Amino acid sequence: MNFEQIAKNAKTASLNIAELTTDTKNYALSNIANELEKHSQEVFDANKTDLELAKDIVSPSVFNRLKLDENKMRDMIQGIKDVVKLDEPVGKTLLARQLDDDLNLYKISCPIGVLGIIFEARPDVIAQISSLAIKSSNAVILKGGKESINTNKTILSIINNALEQVKDFPKNAVQQVFTHEDVAEMLECDKYIDLIIPRGSNKLVKYIKENTKIPVLGHADGICHIFLDKNADFEKAKNIIIDSKTQYPSACNAVETLLIHKDFLKKEELLKSLENSEITLVSNPETWAFEHGDKTLAYKFVENIEEAINHINTYGSGHTDCIITEDEENAEKFMQKVDSAGVYKNVSTRFADGFRYGFGAEVGISTNKTHARGPVGLEGLTIYKYKLIGNGHIVKDYVEGEKQFNHKDI
Amino acid sequence: MNFEQIAKNAKTASLNIAELTTDTKNYALSNIANELEKHSQEVFDANKTDLELAKDIVSPSVFNRLKLDENKMRDMIQGIKDVVKLDEPVGKTLLARQLDDDLNLYKISCPIGVLGIIFEARPDVIAQISSLAIKSSNAVILKGGKESINTNKTILSIINNALEQVKDFPKNAVQQVFTHEDVAEMLECDKYIDLIIPRGSNKLVKYIKENTKIPVLGHADGICHIFLDKNADFEKAKNIIIDSKTQYPSACNAVETLLIHKDFLKKEELLKSLENSEITLVSNPETWAFEHGDKTLAYKFVENIEEAINHINTYGSGHTDCIITEDEENAEKFMQKVDSAGVYKNVSTRFADGFRYGFGAEVGISTNKTHARGPVGLEGLTIYKYKLIGNGHIVKDYVEGEKQFNHKDI
Repeated sequence: MNFEQIAKNAKTASLNIAELTTDTKNYALSNIANELEKHSQEVFDANKTDLELAKDIVSPSVFNRLKLDENKMRDMIQGIKDVVKLDEPVGKTLLARQLDDDLNLYKISCPIGVLGIIFEARPDVIAQISSLAIKSSNAVILKGGKESINTNKTILSIINNALEQVKDFPKNAVQQVFTHEDVAEMLECDKYIDLIIPRGSNKLVKYIKENTKIPVLGHADGICHIFLDKNADFEKAKNIIIDSKTQYPSACNAVETLLIHKDFLKKEELLKSLENSEITLVSNPETWAFEHGDKTLAYKFVENIEEAINHINTYGSGHTDCIITEDEENAEKFMQKVDSAGVYKNVSTRFADGFRYGFGAEVGISTNKTHARGPVGLEGLTIYKYKLIGNGHIVKDYVEGEKQFNHKDI
Repeated sequence: MNFEQIAKNAKTASLNIAELTTDTKNYALSNIANELEKHSQEVFDANKTDLELAKDIVSPSVFNRLKLDENKMRDMIQGIKDVVKLDEPVGKTLLARQLDDDLNLYKISCPIGVLGIIFEARPDVIAQISSLAIKSSNAVILKGGKESINTNKTILSIINNALEQVKDFPKNAVQQVFTHEDVAEMLECDKYIDLIIPRGSNKLVKYIKENTKIPVLGHADGICHIFLDKNADFEKAKNIIIDSKTQYPSACNAVETLLIHKDFLKKEELLKSLENSEITLVSNPETWAFEHGDKTLAYKFVENIEEAINHINTYGSGHTDCIITEDEENAEKFMQKVDSAGVYKNVSTRFADGFRYGFGAEVGISTNKTHARGPVGLEGLTIYKYKLIGNGHIVKDYVEGEKQFNHKDI
């Protein structure tokens, strides 16, 4: 089938999945979890084939992400069950307003439509994103990395078998494509695809953002900063910086640059203790806009808080930036002036995460300035429509002054 | 100054305007209104020059939109005063949640950043959009049509003189560019420009949507439908259709296609009465996806509600579509299944408007599926940031199970 037909089918499915009840969607999700449990050996077998083919080609880190073990499988299945428990995101009344007698306006949350997901190595993304799409009544077209093609196909066929058993569940709600040409067509297909979600390397995300007019939910770089203010508490500072850098160095919310107020008294002692925690310190302006992804931390002494803020707004990626200070006023200033999705005071940058924020799920972390910013939960997969219910009302009467709006929230 | 420098200055201004108090912004807006009042003769003189140059070149309708008379000037000034009265859209707490003891998360509304506005003939757009940008603490770069260049320059210089008189108001918050090259650069400038708002013909909007990766707030076509169900009330139907088509035929929310249930008994009588109201009826499949913009109305008989819904989802533009019916179940079905920003029951499509919805202002009407949909008020010019305030909290403690999140809304 060509891509346009796949996308068209997804659009049709999206209109039908929008109508399913919460019970039907939750039943479908539970059934997917059960079927994956039942057929997990098939998934492991397919994964073995992929690993065999990949082992001499891919890097150890890609190999690790590709590999599905018992733990990852259990997490994947538990992840789907967790989505069942989330609140229904669709059909919520966001506003109810009487415009006039017998003329009522309702703003109701609804699905976005068709999601295009482009991901690399990790095959567990399929189950995660498909379940979030189903819960939010969106159709989804998935394109995974070629290294995991057998695993992906097996997982998707289990998902679709599970969905076929659900009465009224539309066909083509979850589809998969495989080639580079499909990606190119997906990025062009703004007629049917409403939102692209990339999951993978900075390079992948950057490529996608530069090659589509469809809205992209995600972030390329995660260049997070910590500004150590003059009167920061030494112990808090040490713990927060070490956690932000070393707790999971390749995460997008790990800190990349430490800005130190030149008058912070124990600065040499602090740098020493960072080095003792296996952090490699560098101070090279060429790395100001660079995501290290390992235990390398760039640092720079700054004259004052303004220089720190300006540095962050210039070189940062608008992801998550933190001030460590005991000065309430400086904290306020920093959080007001730094133009990032997350602005933190005395806390590790690693907290930037949908689960830690209590969203119950994470679709991704966005550095966009429209639609959704920061860690995005299920809500980010919804939009709204306006329902206006009248009884023969016409605009002429209001323009000519025969009737007046009363605009009363109900 | 080259465009990149202008955009960079706008970005800097946007960071500063974000900090202004409501009082300062409202004072600035009032001052703009006063200065425009004081210098209105200069605006009329500049407009006269533009009209003189345009009179043999442009169409009568463009000439009319270009022309500023006493009425339009009064509306323009009143429009700015109305923006003063709107609620502050920035700094609202959208969520407050305790993640753990002494670890609190706040989701706070904030400006988007830099808006790029591209508009045609109507010079009053400058004052309207500038005042909405100021109220929402966004910087703005305006590009108007060349026909109104003298009027635009004069209005902008009055606005900027007014802003210079306001203590702390940042420079470069409201800027203007003039050439086609500037438009091309604006559409490329995703580094500094966060949102493009086009105001003008379908052709202009379509061109912009097709030539930028920056989010665009707006709609190209307004192909609105009315479905006349089998058991519609004749009088309501007649009034609603006539209002939807003739009250302001060139508006985007005017109806373009009437779908009539084949079993609606008085269908011939209805068509007759539409013709008596100067509506030109056509029934040509080539116009199903066409916005007439005048009193031409396409019509089609359909077998059932499903065919109507399918027609709308196929040929519509996702703007505003209405069912006329006395059947509650069909109304529900229609409003659920039609995938448009506005889904109406027994009411004129012409109600799709930010003022009529009670938003107090209208930034535009969006057919996007992300960020903002339907008539967009001031809220559409905002996004949010997450503030996380802790006291030395690190992620390691939660990962290793020493601490647990409590996720309690506060």
